Amino acid sequence: MKFSIAKDNMNDKKVLRIINLGGTETVTKNLTVYEYDDEIIAVDCGVYFPDSEMHGVDVVIPDFTYLEENSHKFKALFITHGHEDHFGAVPYFLDRFDVPIYADKLVQGFLRERFKDKDSKKYAEKVRFVDFESSTPEVHLKHFKVSAFGVNHSVPDSKGLAIRTPEGLVLHIADFKVDWTPVIDPPIEIDKIANFGNEGVLCLLSDCLGVTKEGMSASEVTIEPTFLDLFEKAKGRQLMITTISSNLSRMYQIIKTAEHYGRKVVLGGRSIQQSVSVAQNLGYLPFPDDLFVSEKSAQSQNQGNIVYIIAGCYGQVGSALERVSRDENERIYLEDNAMIVFSADPNPPGTDVMVEKVMDRLTLKGAEVVYSDIQDNLHISGHGTKGDLTLIAQLAKPKYFIPIGGTITKMRAYRNMLVELGIEKERVFENLEGESVEFSNGEATVGSTIKTELVMIGSDTGEISPIVMKDREQLSSEGVFVVVVPRDKNGNLVPEKSEIITRGFIYVKESPELMQQYRDFAAKSINKWLDKDKDWNELKRKVELDFEKYLYKKSRRRPMVLVHSI
Amino acid sequence: MKFSIAKDNMNDKKVLRIINLGGTETVTKNLTVYEYDDEIIAVDCGVYFPDSEMHGVDVVIPDFTYLEENSHKFKALFITHGHEDHFGAVPYFLDRFDVPIYADKLVQGFLRERFKDKDSKKYAEKVRFVDFESSTPEVHLKHFKVSAFGVNHSVPDSKGLAIRTPEGLVLHIADFKVDWTPVIDPPIEIDKIANFGNEGVLCLLSDCLGVTKEGMSASEVTIEPTFLDLFEKAKGRQLMITTISSNLSRMYQIIKTAEHYGRKVVLGGRSIQQSVSVAQNLGYLPFPDDLFVSEKSAQSQNQGNIVYIIAGCYGQVGSALERVSRDENERIYLEDNAMIVFSADPNPPGTDVMVEKVMDRLTLKGAEVVYSDIQDNLHISGHGTKGDLTLIAQLAKPKYFIPIGGTITKMRAYRNMLVELGIEKERVFENLEGESVEFSNGEATVGSTIKTELVMIGSDTGEISPIVMKDREQLSSEGVFVVVVPRDKNGNLVPEKSEIITRGFIYVKESPELMQQYRDFAAKSINKWLDKDKDWNELKRKVELDFEKYLYKKSRRRPMVLVHSI
Repeated sequence: MKFSIAKDNMNDKKVLRIINLGGTETVTKNLTVYEYDDEIIAVDCGVYFPDSEMHGVDVVIPDFTYLEENSHKFKALFITHGHEDHFGAVPYFLDRFDVPIYADKLVQGFLRERFKDKDSKKYAEKVRFVDFESSTPEVHLKHFKVSAFGVNHSVPDSKGLAIRTPEGLVLHIADFKVDWTPVIDPPIEIDKIANFGNEGVLCLLSDCLGVTKEGMSASEVTIEPTFLDLFEKAKGRQLMITTISSNLSRMYQIIKTAEHYGRKVVLGGRSIQQSVSVAQNLGYLPFPDDLFVSEKSAQSQNQGNIVYIIAGCYGQVGSALERVSRDENERIYLEDNAMIVFSADPNPPGTDVMVEKVMDRLTLKGAEVVYSDIQDNLHISGHGTKGDLTLIAQLAKPKYFIPIGGTITKMRAYRNMLVELGIEKERVFENLEGESVEFSNGEATVGSTIKTELVMIGSDTGEISPIVMKDREQLSSEGVFVVVVPRDKNGNLVPEKSEIITRGFIYVKESPELMQQYRDFAAKSINKWLDKDKDWNELKRKVELDFEKYLYKKSRRRPMVLVHSI
Repeated sequence: MKFSIAKDNMNDKKVLRIINLGGTETVTKNLTVYEYDDEIIAVDCGVYFPDSEMHGVDVVIPDFTYLEENSHKFKALFITHGHEDHFGAVPYFLDRFDVPIYADKLVQGFLRERFKDKDSKKYAEKVRFVDFESSTPEVHLKHFKVSAFGVNHSVPDSKGLAIRTPEGLVLHIADFKVDWTPVIDPPIEIDKIANFGNEGVLCLLSDCLGVTKEGMSASEVTIEPTFLDLFEKAKGRQLMITTISSNLSRMYQIIKTAEHYGRKVVLGGRSIQQSVSVAQNLGYLPFPDDLFVSEKSAQSQNQGNIVYIIAGCYGQVGSALERVSRDENERIYLEDNAMIVFSADPNPPGTDVMVEKVMDRLTLKGAEVVYSDIQDNLHISGHGTKGDLTLIAQLAKPKYFIPIGGTITKMRAYRNMLVELGIEKERVFENLEGESVEFSNGEATVGSTIKTELVMIGSDTGEISPIVMKDREQLSSEGVFVVVVPRDKNGNLVPEKSEIITRGFIYVKESPELMQQYRDFAAKSINKWLDKDKDWNELKRKVELDFEKYLYKKSRRRPMVLVHSI
């Protein structure tokens, strides 16, 4: 194999750095930095939805510190497609940066829709969007030249980026699949990728999430017969189909089938309504307005003449479908013998328990639940499988590879796929978060690592400190135990009058004797140290330690112990 | 179809009640009660492993209240097989009941091994085991006559029960599959089930977990070529295989393959060591002692001559493999280029995120991780699929069916399977927890529901009150906010000297001004109510409400607010 890499200047000592600030390991929270000399551009700016241990956290956003420290170099943000994990952190981004955001009309639409919210109105003024479609001429910055090409994914008009750098051409292809017969948008612009490959590609950043599935991915269109079949079976019955709100192709197919069967369409849940509203305005869903009826007016109609496209396919607490399952959706009521169809990825990490609960409740209420275990072809993934990934790798024939958008295990499987193709594993860089690759004179080496922190955002409250999070973890598993020691008017401690306040540890009302024992122990422990330690903070620490040991011995629990004087 | 049900007395007004106290909905925590007149027997007594929202909870056990209230009738407990969700609550059972426990030698062995622990020693004296094998003559109680027949499952010598009642014969077949070529134990005693069917079965309680998979289940023996292949590939390299500790058949195959390849076997982790020790003593694993080496002595040996059977296949925090992945297993070190094989159910609910983390860490350390996404035939389920379940239903041809051991969704799929066979859905009772079926004169009707509570057990601490659990939930997401109001020597409140103690809410050291604002607000609010309310509890409640509103307005958070005077 021969490599011919286009470069501006072979003798330049400057290097190109590609830093994966997010989007590896945890798949989501995508943010990739391209840096050359005095210029930085970034690709994607997504969120990560928290683990169950992240108490009270709504979203996790990328650590912007590196970009803030280098904001004088930072020239532009490019968004590849309209998924939360690629654009969801833009509002937080706008709090910090004032650079143009290159995005297609759909991404702009999704964001502008969000900026209509009371708390986000300020961003509507602030944001500087630049239209960025696959037909847009190459964007010329000082060192970087960026153009887009169409790829397929579960949201329409997803893009790959061709980034020309002084070190050579880099292709950045985040979430994608190869779909020759997509439903809304055109097929992947495979010819452009082939041309880039022939021109010479320095590095390919490629989606790797679907690498463990063999063969080529199925086309979105192959799901059509499933819907025809389900609508046929549901004749005369209430029918609800749940999918993710950005999957406009899936909705297109549902609406088309509804039209065929003479059913009106009801959009259930705010996320679905917003997404469809944006899509309709942009022409993605060219159906007559009178095909749609509101949640409210649907209540009085024959449910057999309606299909609901409803939010909540991952069992999200508070989603439209989850509330239906608990009889707490004020707008949508479940009829006997309803059919509820789950048309979404059956197993994104961490969702199985929630989905199962919703399905169980719906079944219990008499609904027929249709899900992937009992019905084939209910969902087509938006991520390319091994065949798709191989095809793109072979067409682009880059000198180097950086898998993105996958866990460490998936990155390794992608590397193994390349090794099977005869590519040396040294040409594949499995970057963890903050890790970088540096390119100089056509050669890539491991670059320095940017230290990143977990940036957790609570509901409307802004950033949550890691110390607060650690406290919550302890509070959550063992509760809190507060000892208040009063002082007399001379400021002397009165240990005998100490009070105990505790929650999440024992049920106080059922344990009056225990509470007395704790008060006695407090007096004993404070008196023990009182003579030896004049310093309150020192004394407080010792009494806390005493109590921790005592409580563990008595109860085998370790509540958070706080001693306070007043 | 004709039913001929054997009964003692057609005119008897007494009824047979079958109560599903556990083992439906949540799959685990199995406990079924059989009641006739003045006699009760129970089948299984298992635990449930807590959801991520159950803060600080180790296990959930069945609610024994009904059995305690009727302990004078309660004559015997029968255990079907050696899995935690069927026998794990026996120690808690022994705290409350003194009835014989009918169990096979393996279940007895697992429990006696547990009773060697310091905290459980007392149970060794207390427990009254009665040997109960498929060869054991029918056990005759006053109304019930119980015998066992062998079934297959992922732990050897699992049993179905034939329970003769005055109302007719009931078959209780918990977790099972049909395996004509099992590895350790004999094939399912299908002939006995056929004979019972011909005799006439009133009701079949059947496992339903695997119902959504078509066809007959594969035999455990079909996994053998996978191991031969993996051992071949791992030649000269460190090899670790993880599976659940009770899967003795799987271990048998690993050990046999190890012997073939001249590798010694190391048991990694206490649960695996205990399980193998019990199995060896009972003759389930007839291999020479010198085939095994200890974790410690394995350290100094060539790792290519060893295979580890290691605990932690679900990524459990603190398990042997999870500690290996964090470099915190003091006895087992990971070598470069190790092969780690996951040979267990790839997706039990709620485990995917943990498993992924462990696989990622192992990959990062240079191990080749072999898991079900990239390697076929790594695991064979112990639960019968639709074909198995259909076969048993058709052979037993009961008048009524009660699916057990599955979620509501699985129970419904089992009912649908029966409906496809031409069985009226009215003959299938999908009992939720606490629900019962009553049989009288050969007819079944829905019985009364026994109210059950969630019984949560913390580490070594006994039962956790639901109130404490609710407090922990609030503490975990928003933290705690304590206002302490001092009183002077006359007992009068001094609002101006109020103190604030807070954790998990804001980071106090970073927010001195905020803390002063809170103290000021405390004084203001207390003074406001002080004149109007003489009753402290009333005043306290009002100040708490004031603070809740104030904090929400200021921070959009809702910490637990506690006002206390001292």
